[in-house]
Amino acid sequence: MAPKTNGRVLFNSFPADYPVPGETVVHDTSQTIDIETHPLNGGLLVKTLVLSIDPYMRGRMSKPDKSYAARAPFAIGEPIVGFGIGVVVRSENSEVPAGKYIYGIAVPHQEYFVLADITGFIFLEKNPGLSWSVYLGAAGMPGKTAFAGWKEYSHAKKGEVAFVTTGAGMSHTCSVESLLNQSSHRTCRGVRAFPLLQIKYGLLTSSCRMVIQLAKQDGLKVIASAGSDEKVKFMREIGADVAFNYKSTDTREVLEREGPIDVYWDNVGGDVLDAALEHAAIHARFLVCGMISGYNIGYQGIRNLNLTYMKSLAIYGIAILRLGQYDEEFYTTIPRALAAGELKYSEDVKYGLDTVGEVLLAVQTGANTGKAVVVVAEE
Amino acid sequence: MAPKTNGRVLFNSFPADYPVPGETVVHDTSQTIDIETHPLNGGLLVKTLVLSIDPYMRGRMSKPDKSYAARAPFAIGEPIVGFGIGVVVRSENSEVPAGKYIYGIAVPHQEYFVLADITGFIFLEKNPGLSWSVYLGAAGMPGKTAFAGWKEYSHAKKGEVAFVTTGAGMSHTCSVESLLNQSSHRTCRGVRAFPLLQIKYGLLTSSCRMVIQLAKQDGLKVIASAGSDEKVKFMREIGADVAFNYKSTDTREVLEREGPIDVYWDNVGGDVLDAALEHAAIHARFLVCGMISGYNIGYQGIRNLNLTYMKSLAIYGIAILRLGQYDEEFYTTIPRALAAGELKYSEDVKYGLDTVGEVLLAVQTGANTGKAVVVVAEE
Repeated sequence: MAPKTNGRVLFNSFPADYPVPGETVVHDTSQTIDIETHPLNGGLLVKTLVLSIDPYMRGRMSKPDKSYAARAPFAIGEPIVGFGIGVVVRSENSEVPAGKYIYGIAVPHQEYFVLADITGFIFLEKNPGLSWSVYLGAAGMPGKTAFAGWKEYSHAKKGEVAFVTTGAGMSHTCSVESLLNQSSHRTCRGVRAFPLLQIKYGLLTSSCRMVIQLAKQDGLKVIASAGSDEKVKFMREIGADVAFNYKSTDTREVLEREGPIDVYWDNVGGDVLDAALEHAAIHARFLVCGMISGYNIGYQGIRNLNLTYMKSLAIYGIAILRLGQYDEEFYTTIPRALAAGELKYSEDVKYGLDTVGEVLLAVQTGANTGKAVVVVAEE
Repeated sequence: MAPKTNGRVLFNSFPADYPVPGETVVHDTSQTIDIETHPLNGGLLVKTLVLSIDPYMRGRMSKPDKSYAARAPFAIGEPIVGFGIGVVVRSENSEVPAGKYIYGIAVPHQEYFVLADITGFIFLEKNPGLSWSVYLGAAGMPGKTAFAGWKEYSHAKKGEVAFVTTGAGMSHTCSVESLLNQSSHRTCRGVRAFPLLQIKYGLLTSSCRMVIQLAKQDGLKVIASAGSDEKVKFMREIGADVAFNYKSTDTREVLEREGPIDVYWDNVGGDVLDAALEHAAIHARFLVCGMISGYNIGYQGIRNLNLTYMKSLAIYGIAILRLGQYDEEFYTTIPRALAAGELKYSEDVKYGLDTVGEVLLAVQTGANTGKAVVVVAEE
């Protein structure tokens, strides 16, 4: 077979502010690959199918700085990397035959790539009722974060009250930060500084949508907040009993009227966390998944932690990396429920690597309407 | 029998700063009581044996103010009230015969008192190897706080590292705040403001001493900090592997060298809590018992809560009131271990209600050398 173009999205320059399509990243078609003969050196040749575009990726476009929050920046001139799904088209690894579908955070934005080490990747079985894109959102890491976090930490009981925040929006940074820092967290007991990925702006997330639905399944009353009326409307459609726009409605007033809250799913931190502490019920559980309020302006001090012992509260930090024990249950139940329409999801799908630059910008400005995914190839 | 003097310690005036013996409280001997004929109206006549003098009591000497932290001030002209132990000398309640020993937070500082309602009190059995005073400290609420908190939340494993702080010192405020606010916490789901008792200064506490020993029993390495070399020395004597004076040694340096920490017993809050978060191991447990750093100058914002999800941390607020399920195990094991010398304790005992004024001051300045107790009467 003749060599074919192997399109790539290369990291071209550090943006000053928002990523600029065609400047921050460029779509490059100068490389070719011969599928049949390209050397694998014992590895796999993978054809990229879908790529996840997430707000956290903005952090990887920033130069390392002297701040406490070290980053893991993309390399100039190299393909950017993110969550994605590919199919093995040729293999020199007898344990991973061609035809297998793989999912992981280290998928380069290029049409074909050689994978030497499958550590960190998992294999997926596709539900015929779902497209692969869904396996990056509700049936992927964001959905898993919600599912595993809720199962492990919510201790939810029927009749309780849950509060789910999405603030200016937020994209399961927790999981991503953890995944990227896997080695330092897992192996270095003495490690001091932890790399953080910074998010500039965010969106109503797949994990929030999933948490609202899981809470309703468990018989809780759900209070949810978001930053636009459209998002508030969607929250109501998927079951939130009380949904409000925190830009036009005071969070404390709502919690005073509708609370106190037994479970708090926190994507925001800052003053909203303080408000939630004020309106927590005795023995409430706080599931902290992210703190977007601090990503850009620095973390605001939380002043109400004395209420933890006044009210016997528990606060749990959620890192999906360390909740792998829920993967099997997740994949055997959630994709089926999504395919059957028992759980709702929302995605915003674009086609072709040449759209990545635009979508990277869209997820920073909030222009996308659902989980942002780029389809690179049909099977 | 002829009436006898019924000495009392009356709350006389709100102190401007430190309580002043003879001004803030006065020892009054003007009242008499006839033990045999004093009307009980179905209640109990109790002879006070020992009284606990705790730092938190300073908060009850302050006028109610407009701050968020409402208080439960003592009443001018009435006996002050605190933890104490008494013996029932006469009873009109068939369920509580004379000779029973009672323990509770609502014991007035007077030689004899009528108890109409035993709600909130418990009955004690005395170990012959311990004096009643110990049942106010290591075998009382402070010890219980340590015991129940450690059992319920530490999830301690042999070989792990614990960090125990006592800051400027602190006196199990958590428990006390909770006990005093029992009704609002237990019954009002919608309650907004929670009364806080403010502590001015504190001491190395019975709960810290107990936690250090429980952690050593469980096979952990224990790092402990206090604010004087004498306290540091005592911490070493009872088993702390690393003990340091936080006034002369940087907490972060010690944690960097001796950590990371798996269990943090927090009596301090503020910057020490932030330091502990920085030096927490993955899956560390934070047991928050008090935040003395904020009692006087206001709660300092905690800035490192993002590390909860970076490191999969759990933060638990400890309120002894809600851990009553450990009472039986506590009373069947701890007094025996204390009597046998398997657990150490330290107390500073004074005799007579006329010493209360001085002891109230001493626990604020840190002049006492162990758990401060006033013996009112021998049996």
